[in-house]
Amino acid sequence: MKIINLDHLSANPLLPEVQEAMINTIRNNYGNPSSQHRLGDAAATALEEARESVARLINCAVPKEIVFTSGGTESVNHAIKGVAFAKGEKGKHIITSNIEHSSVIRSIKRLKLFDFKVTSVSVDKYGMVDPKEIEAAITDETILISIMHSNNEIGTIQPIKEIAAIAKAHNILFHTDAVDSVGVIPVDVQDLGVDLLSFGSNAYYGPAGVGGLYIKRGTGIWPVFDGGVQENNKRAGTENLIGIVGMGKAAELALKDMEKRILHSKNLKEKLLRELPDYLDEYVVNGHPESSLPNHISVSIKYIEGESVVLMLDEEGIAVSTRSACAAGALRASHVLLSIGCDFADAQGTMVITFGVDNTEEDVDKFLAVLRDTVVSLREISPLYNKVVK
Amino acid sequence: MKIINLDHLSANPLLPEVQEAMINTIRNNYGNPSSQHRLGDAAATALEEARESVARLINCAVPKEIVFTSGGTESVNHAIKGVAFAKGEKGKHIITSNIEHSSVIRSIKRLKLFDFKVTSVSVDKYGMVDPKEIEAAITDETILISIMHSNNEIGTIQPIKEIAAIAKAHNILFHTDAVDSVGVIPVDVQDLGVDLLSFGSNAYYGPAGVGGLYIKRGTGIWPVFDGGVQENNKRAGTENLIGIVGMGKAAELALKDMEKRILHSKNLKEKLLRELPDYLDEYVVNGHPESSLPNHISVSIKYIEGESVVLMLDEEGIAVSTRSACAAGALRASHVLLSIGCDFADAQGTMVITFGVDNTEEDVDKFLAVLRDTVVSLREISPLYNKVVK
Repeated sequence: MKIINLDHLSANPLLPEVQEAMINTIRNNYGNPSSQHRLGDAAATALEEARESVARLINCAVPKEIVFTSGGTESVNHAIKGVAFAKGEKGKHIITSNIEHSSVIRSIKRLKLFDFKVTSVSVDKYGMVDPKEIEAAITDETILISIMHSNNEIGTIQPIKEIAAIAKAHNILFHTDAVDSVGVIPVDVQDLGVDLLSFGSNAYYGPAGVGGLYIKRGTGIWPVFDGGVQENNKRAGTENLIGIVGMGKAAELALKDMEKRILHSKNLKEKLLRELPDYLDEYVVNGHPESSLPNHISVSIKYIEGESVVLMLDEEGIAVSTRSACAAGALRASHVLLSIGCDFADAQGTMVITFGVDNTEEDVDKFLAVLRDTVVSLREISPLYNKVVK
Repeated sequence: MKIINLDHLSANPLLPEVQEAMINTIRNNYGNPSSQHRLGDAAATALEEARESVARLINCAVPKEIVFTSGGTESVNHAIKGVAFAKGEKGKHIITSNIEHSSVIRSIKRLKLFDFKVTSVSVDKYGMVDPKEIEAAITDETILISIMHSNNEIGTIQPIKEIAAIAKAHNILFHTDAVDSVGVIPVDVQDLGVDLLSFGSNAYYGPAGVGGLYIKRGTGIWPVFDGGVQENNKRAGTENLIGIVGMGKAAELALKDMEKRILHSKNLKEKLLRELPDYLDEYVVNGHPESSLPNHISVSIKYIEGESVVLMLDEEGIAVSTRSACAAGALRASHVLLSIGCDFADAQGTMVITFGVDNTEEDVDKFLAVLRDTVVSLREISPLYNKVVK
């Protein structure tokens, strides 16, 4: 069965050029970048080429501001815990928002066990953070502000540049989790003025389990891994060269094709949102109407369970998600949806659609038709629907 | 130029079957194991198959005692810091040895900043730890003992079973860094009686930047990464499926071919050590004469610099190492060699040769001939040699 993948947030196929770069590494470049002989030289060259490509994608001042990691989660843990432990003498207060990814929330929660205090600011009904609330939360003890660049569940893009300027004015380090933005929309670390920025590789058709952390030159931070002197002594451990090469190639292509990809996604998103009322009633589109990821739609469908929609669409060969795959094993309602004022029942009926380069208008047509039938049959057996609507 | 790789400790080529498994994953299996649709199911199936293969290699009681990591360094950091923070209330004393890998040494050094105390036991001239010294170092505060399974620089294999029994008798958790043993020689976590065991993938022809941590069921330990609920809630972050699949295939082959590989390595090692006196004088072979990795030779050559040997052999297409690639960037003399009583000058003249399945007797012949010429020309320009010997 041909699968229609409308869950690119969870998993992107690797682009052919990325595949070839990785396969070439698998076959021919097995050296250790730290070795002093030619096997090592070849590996070190490939590693630094990838670093340059990734650095260009987010406009680093110098490539060595990039530390390669095992993915967004490691990057976030490194940024938050690394700054907290390095700056803990200066103060133990961190500011974040209510709609961050679990890696941010749980890293900060972990730090509470080391006596760190946290202020988590609320968001408006579009999931937008108010920079003024951030500024108001700053104390003499504040050492770190961490606000995500775009939200993985509702797509809302935050005013990062503004928040970074506030952090800078108060001499506080600023981290942004940009896992769902980098490679998808323009992200320029120098223009944003951030100190730390976490990103992955799969969002732009590189491999999963590979990522990076931008650490602005001169930023005092502890490593997560102690050991060897790899990655300019910022991240011990032999590098996942195969994955990193794939990420580098993916970064190069993302930079080159970004405009084209954004236009493609936007067209599909607009078509879907425009035609949705013809197929469905009683739903809410979540997230900000303008400041939002071009490839991302979150819809809460009343009177049904999102999980059932996912499973029934899967039967028809269509992949969508209820929310981030990271949280798929957890059964609680989404903290993001509850934070934007969605009620518990609507949160449970939420479906996230994320487009990619492989999607077509026909995919949207098929999805809408199957979704209509799915919702009709689910509502037929929904006690709530029968009580409220019929 | 055909490269003769005698530095398998730093970098092993991927076996053809491993390559094919990874390439198949790159091309066909891009799902996220946590997703609830069929793209995710395929990924989850591949992930669990790999876990079973790896679990069989080290004889876990159940596969979910394996947590996949980004390599040996992450595994070691997870084991040591994870136990320390989880058990810190009970006590803050850790026992280790003087010849551990930098990931162990520096993880423990990091813990000193959190008020942990460390006893580091010495080793004999073969690099062997005395279990009695470990037992003598135990206090009421001791929560963790970490001793490596085999040493990466001199190949000595430690009496892990005996040390694990001592730890158990005192109700102390025991971790072993087995990165250079797993997949190379038989390692059975149940027979050894360890609570935690770190390993990688590249030692047995899987990809670099992928590894695992064995955590015995019921062991209380913190994660290194907080975030999603992956890996039975023990390691957040989307998995590096491509690398993990390669590791699984490599584990399967390592288990099947281990005896054959050991025999092959032993033959080459014995040949080299037997013939070495015909090519070289004034050298010392480091490590234990019997309890030693079958693929590993460490030789300290007097009056010359190991780095120069590496570079000159490289010119002839032969890859060897002065010590672990992880430490190649660091300029200090090896702590391992100094610990076994090697003097500073001899430590600097040390060369590590590690065999792999692709080596032949002809490789050893060529190496010995080139080494002789290299050492002759280096000694000719060595002021020390000319002063002492001539």
